Amino acid sequence: MKSVAEIRFTPDPLLPEPLYHQIKEYIKQKIMQGEWTPGMRLPSQRALATAFKVNRSTIIAALDGLHSEGLIETNYGGGTKVSRAGWNTMSTPLLNWEDYVESGNHYPNLPEVQIINQSEYRCDIIRLGTGELAPDLLPQSYFQKIYEKLAQHAPSLGYLEPLGSYKLRQAISSYLADQQIQASPESIIIVSGSLQAMQLIAMGLLPRKSSVLVEKPSYLYSIHAFQSAGVRMIGMPMDKEGLLTAELGRYIRENRPSLLYTIPTFQNPSGVVMSDKRRTELIQTAEATGLAILEDHAYADLWLDEKPPLSLKARDPGSYVLHMGTLSKSVSPGLRIGWVAGPETVIQRLADIKMQTDYGASSLAQEAATLWFTEGYHDIHLAEVREALIRKRNLVLDILARNLAGAAEWNVPQGGFYIWLKLLNGTRPETLFRRALAEGILLNPGSIYDRFDQNHIRISFAYASVTELEKAIIVLSQLISS
Amino acid sequence: MKSVAEIRFTPDPLLPEPLYHQIKEYIKQKIMQGEWTPGMRLPSQRALATAFKVNRSTIIAALDGLHSEGLIETNYGGGTKVSRAGWNTMSTPLLNWEDYVESGNHYPNLPEVQIINQSEYRCDIIRLGTGELAPDLLPQSYFQKIYEKLAQHAPSLGYLEPLGSYKLRQAISSYLADQQIQASPESIIIVSGSLQAMQLIAMGLLPRKSSVLVEKPSYLYSIHAFQSAGVRMIGMPMDKEGLLTAELGRYIRENRPSLLYTIPTFQNPSGVVMSDKRRTELIQTAEATGLAILEDHAYADLWLDEKPPLSLKARDPGSYVLHMGTLSKSVSPGLRIGWVAGPETVIQRLADIKMQTDYGASSLAQEAATLWFTEGYHDIHLAEVREALIRKRNLVLDILARNLAGAAEWNVPQGGFYIWLKLLNGTRPETLFRRALAEGILLNPGSIYDRFDQNHIRISFAYASVTELEKAIIVLSQLISS
Ligand SMILES: Cc1ncc(COP(=O)(O)O)c(C=O)c1O
Ligand SMILES: Cc1ncc(COP(=O)(O)O)c(C=O)c1O
Repeated sequence: MKSVAEIRFTPDPLLPEPLYHQIKEYIKQKIMQGEWTPGMRLPSQRALATAFKVNRSTIIAALDGLHSEGLIETNYGGGTKVSRAGWNTMSTPLLNWEDYVESGNHYPNLPEVQIINQSEYRCDIIRLGTGELAPDLLPQSYFQKIYEKLAQHAPSLGYLEPLGSYKLRQAISSYLADQQIQASPESIIIVSGSLQAMQLIAMGLLPRKSSVLVEKPSYLYSIHAFQSAGVRMIGMPMDKEGLLTAELGRYIRENRPSLLYTIPTFQNPSGVVMSDKRRTELIQTAEATGLAILEDHAYADLWLDEKPPLSLKARDPGSYVLHMGTLSKSVSPGLRIGWVAGPETVIQRLADIKMQTDYGASSLAQEAATLWFTEGYHDIHLAEVREALIRKRNLVLDILARNLAGAAEWNVPQGGFYIWLKLLNGTRPETLFRRALAEGILLNPGSIYDRFDQNHIRISFAYASVTELEKAIIVLSQLISS
Repeated sequence: MKSVAEIRFTPDPLLPEPLYHQIKEYIKQKIMQGEWTPGMRLPSQRALATAFKVNRSTIIAALDGLHSEGLIETNYGGGTKVSRAGWNTMSTPLLNWEDYVESGNHYPNLPEVQIINQSEYRCDIIRLGTGELAPDLLPQSYFQKIYEKLAQHAPSLGYLEPLGSYKLRQAISSYLADQQIQASPESIIIVSGSLQAMQLIAMGLLPRKSSVLVEKPSYLYSIHAFQSAGVRMIGMPMDKEGLLTAELGRYIRENRPSLLYTIPTFQNPSGVVMSDKRRTELIQTAEATGLAILEDHAYADLWLDEKPPLSLKARDPGSYVLHMGTLSKSVSPGLRIGWVAGPETVIQRLADIKMQTDYGASSLAQEAATLWFTEGYHDIHLAEVREALIRKRNLVLDILARNLAGAAEWNVPQGGFYIWLKLLNGTRPETLFRRALAEGILLNPGSIYDRFDQNHIRISFAYASVTELEKAIIVLSQLISS
């Protein structure tokens, strides 16, 4: 993994020193302070020019200066690195942090995901990849009221209980009861988002070399929670009704999986809703074979046309289902509040590991989330978000229909905010990803969700504004058609 | 690991059903709902009696009822478990969650630590173990002002940048500059407490089977971040001036460690401050041998008598030191805000893993922390806390001197809030731990911080009130003397 340095500095043309010199001095200081260490690869000249907001020639002049002072060196591959000899005038340092970065257990993010993570914060970019609501759809004003409440009753600032705030667990218990899920507060753990829940489950419940069944494509392929814990993921086929339950028996016999991970409702990335029939079959198979199910309900609140079928957890005859939810997709990703409901043995084990991982979710976030539910904002807000999402979805579907009929195929999402677009004319998703990025449009190539995918992209209509969507989908259509 | 179920229910004596029956029905429902799963071990009769606030005989009657309905069973060891046969009238379930709990990669917390984590939330307990400020020392009123500010300017609720909020990193950069640590915002990552930082470092920088040097005793022995990543910890001797730097060369030659983890200032649990001389020697050794250092600065702000020597990071000639800080000990543990400053390659790698772990710290907590620094509350608050801690420290030292001279030996903490008490009269720390718990006093046996320790306990004077301290230290002294 080669990480890219963050650069916020831009040289000032009003200063007497030339721009290249200011840049040279900036980098020199970084090296002298030990923040850029020997062996660290510098960003490309083009990336540096973008970051410092100067011409490439200015960058070249700055690098020349650093080179002649022995601070950087060029290797055979053409990359530029902080020099191992020159950083300290005394001696060559014996410590090489680059080795450390290469050697940890945990997998680095996929390269595309890293580029995406970093590009998302560029202000000139239109984000069609981002799986989050646009800033203007986030409930800022309700949260203002929540902060006022917090100011009045000053919540605890101390460490919290292992399972998380009891009041919040009560609130989530009754939120789940509204969805016909019976889960008492003791059987719920609060996590810092459901991504963390997956990490805890991978570390706490699954032995190395065990395997997990996953829909293919799936969000789970975009993260490394399971692989990093040495757990194998086995992709299962799905169609427009969701996971092919008819295949389950065979997959279970052949792979003896520890768990099935599924996103039955508004699947990421395919948008598919598992049908009522398949849900029933899945639960029956679980009962017949002892299959443990991890249900990811991240998008379930975001139905657009009609309520989705009951969750797997609501149908659970015993305790086959661990059920995961989050406020990230429907309310606020930055809050970092999610939960898992399941057997108490499991919940206690996850709590124990959570205590070892970060001592629990932020009390401030938990208090805010409690008020979010108890003050009744959740439902009001969802009604508003639904309306906005329907408008955006329809806009995107319209443009696609007008421009890409024949060249691509896509789903009509009934909820969530993803369009899983299949390229029919041979355009390669990776090529499209790069071309779109050059045009200032960020989208997610299908390979993030299925390593062998060659013909899908995922478009989210949640983040970009209506104007941006209009512009970007047209540009994208042109890139695909050309 | 056997987790202990959380029980909040207490039977109501005003209801017509007898108490034992209410308890029986409560447990039955737990089992029927699948929250207490087959194979789950029930808490002991005594623990159940405490939890339900009834006599042991009531518990026995309830268990008898459950037994005769086939819902629970007693095994040879005398433990009571949820029955594998009776939970579902149809058939024996094939899924056994107990197996999962046994089989994850991650180590469970030490049994003592689990008991401590759970007992801390009992309201009748005096907490001498707890490493956190008392509720009345937490800056509730300043945070009230912060919430008011938040209500006015409504911070972002979106996902945050991989390194964390830039404003917060700027604030921490200048906070560090006040301590003569040069670290620009790009070389700082925000984490959900420094415990998480250790987890990220263990997962992201250290290969399996590598080893880490640690002071012995150390906080690091109480957590499993490193062991769970397959990293070996090698304890190094220390004395009243801190780590024995004279031994370092040998330990490095013999163990080729990836890292040295040290808490040079107000060490947990010993309270020791590494002397100026030793700090210089440590840095010199790092330079000479290429040793990477992880400096944990958790308690440094809490100096009581005089400012401690400059941190290792402030003396770092190149980039040997990763420097970790947190708001947990001096401001608010519940906020979950910490940071790491170091070479950008390392910081970027940690950020990449953090994004995979929980997508970053809560934006709400980050905004609050930013205001905490920028509004200048940090210094005012610290002055207040110091005064209160000095009072409490002196009180405890007084009582100890009056009651335990000869029977024990202890340090006079110059900062932080731990007294590391050595039992000289043969009292076993584990026995003392249990006896004290029976008297409603929670303390930490030394074995948490050094598996082979046989004669220390750690007393924190931060959490208990003055009245509680007075009472508890006297009881403790009696337990030790008797
Ligand atoms: C299906 C699914 N589950 C979980 C998550 C993680 O969400 P969070 O950790 O913010 O709760 C995502 C985010 O993209 C997702 O798409
Ligand atoms: C030395 C030391 N470092 C780090 C921590 C973890 O603190 P947090 O994760 O709350 O920042 C503790 C807490 O006890 C500690 O004693």
